[in-house]
Amino acid sequence: MRVNGTAWRTIWPEDDGRAVGIIDQTRLPHAFETLRLTSMEAAAHAISAMLVRGAPLIGATAAWGVALAMAEDASDTGLERAYAVLVATRPTAINLRWALDTMKARLAPLSPAERPAAARAHAAAICDEDVALNEAIGSNGLEVIRSLYATKGGTGTFNILTHCNAGWLATVDWGTALAPIYKAHDAGLPIHVWVDETRPRNQGASLTAWELNSHGVPHTVIVDNAGGHYMQHGQVDMVIVGTDRTTAQGDVCNKIGTYLKALAAHDNNVPFYVALPGPTIDWTVNDGVKEIPIEERSQAEVTRLWGRTEDGALTWVTVTPKGSPAANPAFDVTPARLITGLITERGVCPASAEGLRGLYA
Amino acid sequence: MRVNGTAWRTIWPEDDGRAVGIIDQTRLPHAFETLRLTSMEAAAHAISAMLVRGAPLIGATAAWGVALAMAEDASDTGLERAYAVLVATRPTAINLRWALDTMKARLAPLSPAERPAAARAHAAAICDEDVALNEAIGSNGLEVIRSLYATKGGTGTFNILTHCNAGWLATVDWGTALAPIYKAHDAGLPIHVWVDETRPRNQGASLTAWELNSHGVPHTVIVDNAGGHYMQHGQVDMVIVGTDRTTAQGDVCNKIGTYLKALAAHDNNVPFYVALPGPTIDWTVNDGVKEIPIEERSQAEVTRLWGRTEDGALTWVTVTPKGSPAANPAFDVTPARLITGLITERGVCPASAEGLRGLYA
Repeated sequence: MRVNGTAWRTIWPEDDGRAVGIIDQTRLPHAFETLRLTSMEAAAHAISAMLVRGAPLIGATAAWGVALAMAEDASDTGLERAYAVLVATRPTAINLRWALDTMKARLAPLSPAERPAAARAHAAAICDEDVALNEAIGSNGLEVIRSLYATKGGTGTFNILTHCNAGWLATVDWGTALAPIYKAHDAGLPIHVWVDETRPRNQGASLTAWELNSHGVPHTVIVDNAGGHYMQHGQVDMVIVGTDRTTAQGDVCNKIGTYLKALAAHDNNVPFYVALPGPTIDWTVNDGVKEIPIEERSQAEVTRLWGRTEDGALTWVTVTPKGSPAANPAFDVTPARLITGLITERGVCPASAEGLRGLYA
Repeated sequence: MRVNGTAWRTIWPEDDGRAVGIIDQTRLPHAFETLRLTSMEAAAHAISAMLVRGAPLIGATAAWGVALAMAEDASDTGLERAYAVLVATRPTAINLRWALDTMKARLAPLSPAERPAAARAHAAAICDEDVALNEAIGSNGLEVIRSLYATKGGTGTFNILTHCNAGWLATVDWGTALAPIYKAHDAGLPIHVWVDETRPRNQGASLTAWELNSHGVPHTVIVDNAGGHYMQHGQVDMVIVGTDRTTAQGDVCNKIGTYLKALAAHDNNVPFYVALPGPTIDWTVNDGVKEIPIEERSQAEVTRLWGRTEDGALTWVTVTPKGSPAANPAFDVTPARLITGLITERGVCPASAEGLRGLYA
């Protein structure tokens, strides 16, 4: 995707892979700033402090984190330590564990001398694979949109609601939930996107709106409370969201509030799709509501908000009274029964054990 | 209710009813400031700019607005003009129209000389009636809570989720949805309240949290996205919300996002109650989704947030990128099928035409 006319990915090697560049996503949408990561600890901080976020980009950053670790200490101890530090940064992200397992499996059999170069090559390959996966998701999702638009009569605006940011900024390129939207827009379909602001961190209002605005896709930011109303009034033709973790039976763990939108879509016969790359499927989990531990994040994410004042300064403001505590579960689980279909790089399938097994035998 | 140990209502006459005092609710929870209204136009502004909000308090303020108008111009023209200006301030608020109709019906038959004193007396009576209504709602709701707590086994914390602010600050005193909570807390029941922050205006995070904090009721502020997750995990025993307008068949028009919580409650067998005084029932409307026009408010309420900086200054910050538009429907409609019961000053009834007719023959 492009920013100010220049093609960017969200993560890239510098100095022959001895440093890694990222976009500081906590500064968006008000400032576009990049950072150089030069150590595994810096990569771990980038993940835990959400300078980078989104399941695929977290995985890619963890892979590069291992590569940075190998440049400093390529021993078995160094490899184990990198795995342990990086895997603890975000407990819900299945992509994180997948990327680290992949890196470890490739590097462990090698001698310490071989590991640094191999780690760089594998981290780069993980990034390239993510781009290819997402473009395939986009193409498969485009066909779903074409079909729904035809069912609608093929005229007028086609309104898609999305929650959080499962776009270009959440992956290495293209995005997952937004990949079909970019493909449809570029193919000339008259797409309009309802962007949930996605409290508490406002990834929709900041990141998704910034992406769509940069690319020229018509969109409107709404509070998380508003989507049900628009569905009741026929103003949403489809919902597409991403996922941090999909269970073997098709339950989806995604940003807090996704479940509420799925309920509203179900109540109003609005197709509800989840876009995901294969690595976000956790084959060891079935019942997402019962089995997935939900990350509880800082109260301050609820009680404070970050934005731009009228004079252009970026600041935090507190919105709650002194003395009122807050709670902050970061994800919820949408049961498979509420999901119309899963859009993957291998095709589209029902949200069920059979559906997933059909694509991932 | 009490603030810093002193008993307050949200609106009160000053100077023998020639001026009216209110709390500037746009300054809460960070500052507790009162204002003197000395003209009908000032009362209209207080309603439209939401210095006062909440259906019952809007009605009370409109009634006092008519009294202020009569002090200046008690002619038929003056009465018609006050009605026209005040009724246009908030199109969705049925209480507003009810209070104005009541005032007009009482004043129109009188001579202009009699109107100023009569207007003050009727506005004061409307306020006293609201307090009595809300206390009755509290008592009836308390019995619902006692019964649900007994069904739960009568041990442990009883968790109630509420959306927006239907508390003391939304009425003249007590509140509607919060009246049963205050009654239950004061009766010694171990209540804990999940407070939806209620974007875009954050009435939950600011007003409801401030009220509960002032009164000592245990509570936790959560983003609007979180309630469904807590319901899935058995951490919500009951939902109580208020309503701006209830239809003859029991549909409820309340703050945007109420519908999503009702869907989640229904999906998880959590009792969903709406607290309302009789005057908020609109007997002329049946199907709320189809018939009630929804107020579209300013984009700026979505794109900007108000809060306290670290150095104590109160400021607005913008959270969206330049160039991204926003939409802001202020209410949604919760169909009666999702509502367990209506808590009124006359008792508790099913959300149905039969239920409402049983109480309001």
